[in-house]
Amino acid sequence: MAAQKEISKSVLKRLPVYLAYLRAMPVTAPDHISATSLAQALGMGEVQVRKDLALVSSGGRPKIGYPKDRLIHDIEEFLGYGDPNDAVLIGAGKLGLALLGYSGFAEYGLNIVAGFDADESLVGKIKSGKTILHVSKLEEVCREKNIKIGIITVPAEYAQDVCNLLIQNGIQAIWNFAPTHLDVPDHILVQNENMAASLALLSKHLNEQMRKGV
Amino acid sequence: MAAQKEISKSVLKRLPVYLAYLRAMPVTAPDHISATSLAQALGMGEVQVRKDLALVSSGGRPKIGYPKDRLIHDIEEFLGYGDPNDAVLIGAGKLGLALLGYSGFAEYGLNIVAGFDADESLVGKIKSGKTILHVSKLEEVCREKNIKIGIITVPAEYAQDVCNLLIQNGIQAIWNFAPTHLDVPDHILVQNENMAASLALLSKHLNEQMRKGV
Repeated sequence: MAAQKEISKSVLKRLPVYLAYLRAMPVTAPDHISATSLAQALGMGEVQVRKDLALVSSGGRPKIGYPKDRLIHDIEEFLGYGDPNDAVLIGAGKLGLALLGYSGFAEYGLNIVAGFDADESLVGKIKSGKTILHVSKLEEVCREKNIKIGIITVPAEYAQDVCNLLIQNGIQAIWNFAPTHLDVPDHILVQNENMAASLALLSKHLNEQMRKGV
Repeated sequence: MAAQKEISKSVLKRLPVYLAYLRAMPVTAPDHISATSLAQALGMGEVQVRKDLALVSSGGRPKIGYPKDRLIHDIEEFLGYGDPNDAVLIGAGKLGLALLGYSGFAEYGLNIVAGFDADESLVGKIKSGKTILHVSKLEEVCREKNIKIGIITVPAEYAQDVCNLLIQNGIQAIWNFAPTHLDVPDHILVQNENMAASLALLSKHLNEQMRKGV
């Protein structure tokens, strides 16, 4: 694994792009790939790709490039995909159930161990092998499995309370799908996904285009 | 509906928060709600909430507040939820199928009419009532139903081609889940959702916390 340098968010956005491309290459493709050809294939700057790859892998050789399998492995390890992170999800509504049922997270090193909800009528339901537990079991599960990631899919008005509860139970990184701001201590990371805002932006754009008669 | 003033992205992020709160209020709650009480309930600034509500609804009265039902209606109309936008989705992989199967988009005025894929083995599948069509049918569906929103859930390396194809077929707003940058003409809006980058950020945060021994 590469040295533990400080890395920027923009690098962390590009690495999954390289990884997706490398993983999707046919088995008949050459064993090695250069930063130049990767940059060309993805329409990205060569200097940037070269720097990014050098940051995560020491396998590159002049004129030959990187052994593809090793590069995939090094990026995965750098991103922590090799060692999956367990997560809990709070809020078993439509979005919560959709995320619980989505099997694609495993490729990104995320393993949702269970869903939680305060609504007794949802407790005991099973979605794609993941059980919905009552939120009173959260502490037990977090402690036993040493969970560090919490996913919030409750309505906005409950999100701060759920966030506080997660932090009390040792969660250090929060993936927030509730369309609201969360107050957290400095050592906690909150990553916001505001789908409602995205949809509102798309919709407003269409309205504006219609007004312009485009 | 309020006058067509220029509105900022931050307003468009807050409006769905108000809406979610108002919709979730019990039927036993008072008929009227003031900007002050809404701001307090959501932990947001009173001046900001007051301005936002005035932008979307003319129903507010001093000391009384807004009639709740009318305010819900005015926000929905402002966000274009009352008049659902039809969308097509390209890429019927795990994420594409999860989005096709997610019924929660209807609440935000988005109606995905069909999924498309180039893989013949996926064509004809039905997910939650939505059919997967071959991508060669895209033009026909977009023209017939006058579709303006395209959702991209293909791997990163195909995303630009799919984006170009959508624009050729009259799409004006793109919701991009592929972890890559898309080049588009000025009048096209691209809204990016980079879940892989979000997960990478969460994972790196945990690794850093572990190094610090937190």
